[in-house]
Amino acid sequence: MQKIVLTPIGYAHNANRPDTPSPELQASTSQIIVDERYEDGLMGIGQNEFLTIVFYFHLVDRYELRIHPRGDTSRPITGVFNTRSQFRPNPIGVTVVRLKSIEGNKLVVEGLDAVDGTPILDIKPHVLTFDEGVKADGAGKDRA
Amino acid sequence: MQKIVLTPIGYAHNANRPDTPSPELQASTSQIIVDERYEDGLMGIGQNEFLTIVFYFHLVDRYELRIHPRGDTSRPITGVFNTRSQFRPNPIGVTVVRLKSIEGNKLVVEGLDAVDGTPILDIKPHVLTFDEGVKADGAGKDRA
Repeated sequence: MQKIVLTPIGYAHNANRPDTPSPELQASTSQIIVDERYEDGLMGIGQNEFLTIVFYFHLVDRYELRIHPRGDTSRPITGVFNTRSQFRPNPIGVTVVRLKSIEGNKLVVEGLDAVDGTPILDIKPHVLTFDEGVKADGAGKDRA
Repeated sequence: MQKIVLTPIGYAHNANRPDTPSPELQASTSQIIVDERYEDGLMGIGQNEFLTIVFYFHLVDRYELRIHPRGDTSRPITGVFNTRSQFRPNPIGVTVVRLKSIEGNKLVVEGLDAVDGTPILDIKPHVLTFDEGVKADGAGKDRA
């Protein structure tokens, strides 16, 4: 299989630690600082209420194909692709966040369930889900 | 900035070509063949109606920070992060698809707007959006 090499476009800064509980992560506020060389790509992004953030689980050094969800042995084992676990073959996270503000290359977002220092790979407008998209006649689903 | 190296977990096979119009891409059916070494990670995935597919725009060799959406010069220029354009610094696509069937390491999905041969980086259960998640008391948003 081919190798794919990516470079972070920026990093997340917040008070989240590896042991921060999931509900706190989801309620947390982060600053995303985009590298200045990509700042022009943020033009117009302030019009979005929600953004999809693609990030890299940089602290993860292994994966498990079958896991107990959240490490809870009382929950039945399932495949890692059936979960949002960070212990996946390509440790990529995808989370929809609420955009609170933007100033230059700095975004403030709510709901990024990632720890301080997380490399950001991509930022996209949050589009309607498949279901919503069908209802809405596919609006917003086109590639720009 | 650090470099991040990923390996595809599989590839998409379909009738989509680089010049296939967007509506056809969105209505298209793809087979995703996951590398056999990751097949165990698919356990339980058949229970999902929708999946989030993370993939790599392997035919893209450049990015543009500011673009006319869909290359349509009648539409105002905007930042690439405000679009789903493939011409982004990290050419990663994220699309919610409908799972039609799964057999072993082969998934049949509807709505993957990617061309034939696209490397697949990750498969996740589609979770509720931020808004829906708030309404539904955050169910399904936890990291497993």
